[in-house]
Amino acid sequence: MKKFMNTAESMVAESLDGFVRAHEELVVFSAERKCVRRKDLARGKVAVISGGGAGHEPMHVGFVGRGMLDAACTGHVFTSPTPDQIVNAIEETDTGAGCLLIVKNYDGDVMNFEMAAEMAAGTHRIETIIVRDDIDTDGATRSHGRRGVSGTVVIEKLLGAAAESGMGLGELKLLGEALSPRIRTMGVALRGVTVPDTQRITFSLADGEMELGVGIHGEPGHMREAFTPADDIVARLCENVIADLPSQGRQNALLFVNGLGGTPPAELYLAYGIARRLCEAADFRIARSLVGTYVTSLDMAGLSVTLALLDERELKLWDDPVATAALRWGA
Amino acid sequence: MKKFMNTAESMVAESLDGFVRAHEELVVFSAERKCVRRKDLARGKVAVISGGGAGHEPMHVGFVGRGMLDAACTGHVFTSPTPDQIVNAIEETDTGAGCLLIVKNYDGDVMNFEMAAEMAAGTHRIETIIVRDDIDTDGATRSHGRRGVSGTVVIEKLLGAAAESGMGLGELKLLGEALSPRIRTMGVALRGVTVPDTQRITFSLADGEMELGVGIHGEPGHMREAFTPADDIVARLCENVIADLPSQGRQNALLFVNGLGGTPPAELYLAYGIARRLCEAADFRIARSLVGTYVTSLDMAGLSVTLALLDERELKLWDDPVATAALRWGA
Repeated sequence: MKKFMNTAESMVAESLDGFVRAHEELVVFSAERKCVRRKDLARGKVAVISGGGAGHEPMHVGFVGRGMLDAACTGHVFTSPTPDQIVNAIEETDTGAGCLLIVKNYDGDVMNFEMAAEMAAGTHRIETIIVRDDIDTDGATRSHGRRGVSGTVVIEKLLGAAAESGMGLGELKLLGEALSPRIRTMGVALRGVTVPDTQRITFSLADGEMELGVGIHGEPGHMREAFTPADDIVARLCENVIADLPSQGRQNALLFVNGLGGTPPAELYLAYGIARRLCEAADFRIARSLVGTYVTSLDMAGLSVTLALLDERELKLWDDPVATAALRWGA
Repeated sequence: MKKFMNTAESMVAESLDGFVRAHEELVVFSAERKCVRRKDLARGKVAVISGGGAGHEPMHVGFVGRGMLDAACTGHVFTSPTPDQIVNAIEETDTGAGCLLIVKNYDGDVMNFEMAAEMAAGTHRIETIIVRDDIDTDGATRSHGRRGVSGTVVIEKLLGAAAESGMGLGELKLLGEALSPRIRTMGVALRGVTVPDTQRITFSLADGEMELGVGIHGEPGHMREAFTPADDIVARLCENVIADLPSQGRQNALLFVNGLGGTPPAELYLAYGIARRLCEAADFRIARSLVGTYVTSLDMAGLSVTLALLDERELKLWDDPVATAALRWGA
């Protein structure tokens, strides 16, 4: 295992420290560095908070800033943040309009965010959205039901923009729940990852193998198959994603090809070109696109394809200004 | 070798096709797809053109757009674009104020851009800036003297912003030459890369080894050494970069940690934190920062550190609005 790190114990703190220093115009650490929060809080808007294990950067800290998240809590690698961290994020960012917690569907995350919401409930109004965008995950080892994976970026951007525009807590919750069934993702890995603490590779793939249906914690996927040309791989992802969406074609969609950490932009764009052709052949109108490394699984070689069916209001929320480390436009 | 591709012959064209489709609001292909150019050309400004081999994405196509490049020509993997492509870029983007060619110092690139400039000289005013930001490269195999590496991003951003603000061709040339000695870069690789055409790995590193002083074409670096903790690796890079700059400390600088393709954001931020501490200890004032995967060497695991000494006018040019696929702010 060769990674740019000093010790497994210090790597998350050191990486976050570098992140905050690199983006000090956008973010600050909260008290005792329990979370990373937006530098200039907007008074009177709902605070949007997310978090999860480390190892998925730039998610979620890279989405803290105007038009997206107000705070992000980071746990250790592939480990939920503690309820204490999440309560701190709530206390530091709730300016009176309440808090929306965006939680990826993993048992540890769901439990700790729930516990934090209970602890803070006496003094804060809180709603929670659970992200479950992965295609139907039989035998998922860390969640009940669909996992939250790269579709999280879409949810956080749209709800962040809606909160910034003044939408209230109840309406945000309804919007999040309405979006959820219309966002689907499937991933593929060409190489497993080594978790620094254990120094163990999560799964090993031979030269001629790939793993389909992977999540973002190095857990094995649904199927191990022979490695094939990109046309075939991307077709497998798109077919599953499209089949798992509630309606077919003739709709505006956002197409998002996400790198899992070890795959370079040139390969992501090549995959995007294939996915775009396939989605258009299935009669979807690709109205917006995102290609890049936004939700990682350490340095995994692999990618995921996310398709999100969005109406006109949601496309406008996608276009709204955003100023974060990882997503920035119009601001 | 597992990469998301179909054939070695088609991969560059397919990747560029995906890129242009993903960013169709910013860029278009020129005639016969010889280059990628800005969708809405600004009349009356100097056209800024760059290019080079494929395999370095998002450079250069990712820097085409308002406030940076007007066109980028892409050759095959690690191979210069042809003079014909470059002439096409000149013809498609020169609106009367002349063209500035930004060329990384590799023999093939320098020769082909020079030939294109000669071919177009009868009908276009042309100046050329050669980027040579690598630390002193003894035994470089592809260039005479210092190679052009990630510092290219800084040159292209600053000259692009200056051209956008109306600076004339002669003044742009002077600014580029003044910047050149104040930008230095050094890279390290933890894993070599396999070039798709040859299916050969460029250099092999054992588990406990790293390669210091690498370029971006898989050529070996200066030194092969035992792999060490990040503190030591980043110190080696920073020491060499600082020693190779014309003046020491007490100056505004831009610090740029660049991923070479296979290194995830979490590791880049960790390295940034170390580099920042070391540069500040050497009395540089880190006025601007950039952390991310901008100049790649296929899927190489590795990174580079660039330090650029910038005056107030140049910092302002860095801050000027830019709207490209890879760099975007203020627009």
